[in-house]
Amino acid sequence: MSQPFQTPQDAEDAYYDALDERSVDHMMQVWDDSPDIACLLPMQPFIHGSAVRDMWRALLQSDMPIDIHVRHVRWVEIDDIAIHYVEEQSRLASAQGTPPPVYAVNVFRRRGDAGWGMILHQNSPSPPPPGSAPPRV
Amino acid sequence: MSQPFQTPQDAEDAYYDALDERSVDHMMQVWDDSPDIACLLPMQPFIHGSAVRDMWRALLQSDMPIDIHVRHVRWVEIDDIAIHYVEEQSRLASAQGTPPPVYAVNVFRRRGDAGWGMILHQNSPSPPPPGSAPPRV
Repeated sequence: MSQPFQTPQDAEDAYYDALDERSVDHMMQVWDDSPDIACLLPMQPFIHGSAVRDMWRALLQSDMPIDIHVRHVRWVEIDDIAIHYVEEQSRLASAQGTPPPVYAVNVFRRRGDAGWGMILHQNSPSPPPPGSAPPRV
Repeated sequence: MSQPFQTPQDAEDAYYDALDERSVDHMMQVWDDSPDIACLLPMQPFIHGSAVRDMWRALLQSDMPIDIHVRHVRWVEIDDIAIHYVEEQSRLASAQGTPPPVYAVNVFRRRGDAGWGMILHQNSPSPPPPGSAPPRV
């Protein structure tokens, strides 16, 4: 891993590598150097600022198993903002089998020579099979 | 409603007003003038670019009932980016009763004199009561 990240994809790869490696140091480097970063994990309260770093520090140092396979689906760039959309598939089976994949939206910001950093990570449920449910606003 | 929106809150208010009014014109004004805006409604596929405008046009012109109460929870601003986090509570009861609230994260971008526009709307489930579930990455 090298800082600064030259592309949003470099920062995103580093995010998932940090999860794989359970590396607190690398995870800290991924996030933008701002007090206002934000994170919303599945079925968890929204957190922002230093709570994001505290949460990741605690989570990576815990004994909670993590094994995520990532499928890159789409990315968009608007000036110095990049929105990356991936599907995260946990490979950890439980008594209920392998859970369905979840969407993750990762938003990055470029800050000149400081390169790209993550400012938002948010998970959402993946949709049911097409045609099985009407949209809800 | 007046354009350009001077604050992210002005743009967000206009978004929910456009829902209330079912106003396609107002909804179109809320979104940033970029081909790369993105939207993820509950249990729907991720859409971006012109598909966002097409989806809202169709949805607001449909007969799908919409009645959302919004609770503003938190917002953060990072230079020309604003991340707003709200809880959306549908007031439409079904056979199963009133659905639980969902989180929405609205991301806005400031483009100089063009003011603030929405670049991302994403919904996520609200969490269960505290202590009832461990975090999932």
